[in-house]
Amino acid sequence: MSIVPLRVGLFGGGVVGGGVYELIQKYTQNGRLKALGSSVEIVKICVRSLDKPRDFQINNGTTTIVTDYNEILQDPSINCVIELMGGTTNAKDVVFKAIQANKHVVTANKALIANYLPELEAELAAHPTVKFSYEAAVCGGIPVIHTLQTDFVADNITKIMGIMNGTTNFMLSKMEDEGADYGIVLAEAQRLGFAEADPTADVEGHDVQAKIALLTKLAFGTTVSVATIPTTGISKLSKIDFEYAKSLKSTIKLLGTANLNTDGSLAVFVSPTVVPLTNPLSGAKGPGNMVLVNSENMNSSTFAGPGAGRFPTANSVVNDLIRLSQGKTLTPFPLQHEMTINNDYAARFYVRITCSDGLGIIRSVGETAEQNGISIHAVLQNPIDDPSNVDFVVTTDCVKLSQVQSFAQTISTLPFAKQIPLFMPIL
Amino acid sequence: MSIVPLRVGLFGGGVVGGGVYELIQKYTQNGRLKALGSSVEIVKICVRSLDKPRDFQINNGTTTIVTDYNEILQDPSINCVIELMGGTTNAKDVVFKAIQANKHVVTANKALIANYLPELEAELAAHPTVKFSYEAAVCGGIPVIHTLQTDFVADNITKIMGIMNGTTNFMLSKMEDEGADYGIVLAEAQRLGFAEADPTADVEGHDVQAKIALLTKLAFGTTVSVATIPTTGISKLSKIDFEYAKSLKSTIKLLGTANLNTDGSLAVFVSPTVVPLTNPLSGAKGPGNMVLVNSENMNSSTFAGPGAGRFPTANSVVNDLIRLSQGKTLTPFPLQHEMTINNDYAARFYVRITCSDGLGIIRSVGETAEQNGISIHAVLQNPIDDPSNVDFVVTTDCVKLSQVQSFAQTISTLPFAKQIPLFMPIL
Repeated sequence: MSIVPLRVGLFGGGVVGGGVYELIQKYTQNGRLKALGSSVEIVKICVRSLDKPRDFQINNGTTTIVTDYNEILQDPSINCVIELMGGTTNAKDVVFKAIQANKHVVTANKALIANYLPELEAELAAHPTVKFSYEAAVCGGIPVIHTLQTDFVADNITKIMGIMNGTTNFMLSKMEDEGADYGIVLAEAQRLGFAEADPTADVEGHDVQAKIALLTKLAFGTTVSVATIPTTGISKLSKIDFEYAKSLKSTIKLLGTANLNTDGSLAVFVSPTVVPLTNPLSGAKGPGNMVLVNSENMNSSTFAGPGAGRFPTANSVVNDLIRLSQGKTLTPFPLQHEMTINNDYAARFYVRITCSDGLGIIRSVGETAEQNGISIHAVLQNPIDDPSNVDFVVTTDCVKLSQVQSFAQTISTLPFAKQIPLFMPIL
Repeated sequence: MSIVPLRVGLFGGGVVGGGVYELIQKYTQNGRLKALGSSVEIVKICVRSLDKPRDFQINNGTTTIVTDYNEILQDPSINCVIELMGGTTNAKDVVFKAIQANKHVVTANKALIANYLPELEAELAAHPTVKFSYEAAVCGGIPVIHTLQTDFVADNITKIMGIMNGTTNFMLSKMEDEGADYGIVLAEAQRLGFAEADPTADVEGHDVQAKIALLTKLAFGTTVSVATIPTTGISKLSKIDFEYAKSLKSTIKLLGTANLNTDGSLAVFVSPTVVPLTNPLSGAKGPGNMVLVNSENMNSSTFAGPGAGRFPTANSVVNDLIRLSQGKTLTPFPLQHEMTINNDYAARFYVRITCSDGLGIIRSVGETAEQNGISIHAVLQNPIDDPSNVDFVVTTDCVKLSQVQSFAQTISTLPFAKQIPLFMPIL
């Protein structure tokens, strides 16, 4: 085994950075790293402010704290950079300059990688000695990146989808289990620290958008522009949707999906999805994550575990460091295969129509469906409490997204409709 | 990337061997291997009989079929051997001679590795250039070996357990879903080809015994003698057990388990286990496999997929070949840490007592429990159909296996008992 001793500059002394530092200290002291044929020393930590309190102990004998990026980037004795700052401004600067300085990079920054994939690949191609690892960027502790880099490369993936955001999965699990409504579970998630004060990135699906872009690259070899991925969050879901989902022997999960269409093109999207209770994804509760992969050789596989948190995420970073020091880093994006993206995917859909009760609504909905070439699979309507505010659900046979969009748009113009119907695919 | 061109001798032209050959041919022809920086050529296949019909096409221009092992083992142009013969006699000969000839080895042979682990490690240590991979040996297509070799090495695993036998999981799923009895589902599994004519190795848990020995080595670094692992199969389970499990909001799975005891020793065992429906293992249905890992950094992770079959298993073998040719093979047993094995583990237990109905049975069972220091958690008894043949269930608080064994032994000597009570741990 060819050991590459790593002298590391760590950017970011927060939750995950502290976890990485603690694990490296622990496994240096107890000899684990050495037993694994690995040598990792964190020699500098770059933080925003020297005064900010830190929740981990720094060994001043071996590690210097700095606030100037260049103290790491221009230090020729440092051969590896860990980037845990987040964001795509300073972090981008640091990562690209590190590569240009021929330093290896380990990062957890999904947004940076997903949004600057072509530039990153070009930079890495220009610096062939640089190893680049990012296990922590998607699904925290679950080794899904590494698994896709090596365990599916002799297979043909047809679909990858998953629960990749712990905040929203915690909220959806609460809505399912407690029959609570969206606002209540959001407030609870915020109180417990699972959701941020501004929860937009989580609840509107932007976090998942970057993650599914990365998994698409790994699973299919295709670069997809993050901003073009149709993304619907969970903020319009109501407890009534969980009641209807239950009557369909299903639940609702926020999924990122990349799926081969029948014509060989690829659909990539983020949407709440009706998941039958027989599907493994239905069983992922609380803040956990789960990724499901369908492939030619393997049929269906799932990988589940903690999607965030100090030590799960730090564990992924440390594994990247160990592989790097062992000379076992894998090609970051092993497949290269540009495909046509067509997000007008086909699925069965769940459509919730909110209306005032009246005569002829079902007929009118039926007509609108017919005009859009949509065959209705079922109509679900709970007993009406308030005739001025009725929610009923139509499920469709397999149709295209554009047909459902057009159907919902037309429904919203009809006199009984109170809003644009909420719709989502059914697995 | 340092490409090691592999010239491979394949032992075994059966189901998995054929799948490996087909995948290598396919990915050679379509350029996938080359794109991955991999070069693999299967130049000889050793089979038992040249006349036996094969279900895959051999390219006679590039591949020679032979029946004499030495045609591969003594061929200096061959630098890698794939062993897919199974068994521990000829296969052992082939694997050890290949290592002695400094040829890399890829095998799917769990029994061989688990039963000859010290000899194998010594042989590999004596031939340090030889790479040894065995992803297909446990859980077919699920990359659990590779995951343990690299994604948990900076973590401390406290428990690993799993459903690792597709035949029995298929049968138990049927018993759960259809309320069918053991004999009926065994006959159906045999009819469908899921179970062999002599199903002993599967239904008595011997297959899982070797697999949990391997996972124990990977997760804890400890070599455990296969034959000493207490192993109970599923052949004594009856449909009544699934009825009682259901009333406990649980199901029953055959699990291999390696679990840290509170005193730091390790318990390794194979047993049917009562699994609550809230545990992910309860959701693995049919012939699929699932492994659950509890660890310090990650809390709980699961890995699920096909546990057997031509292409899932071949996929694992081919991934081993690709990593080998890329120079990315990992240390086969990365942790080395001898631990005390103490299989007198603590758990809550399910105990089914089969008796003739009569006066004072519950009192007598209670007394026996008390004498063994067992606190009873619950007594479950369905309405009695046949007073001469009553099954009722006692669940215990957390006690040691030896206490339950003694309890069951004493019960079996009491006049009302019709057999030794069946018992199993509750997760």
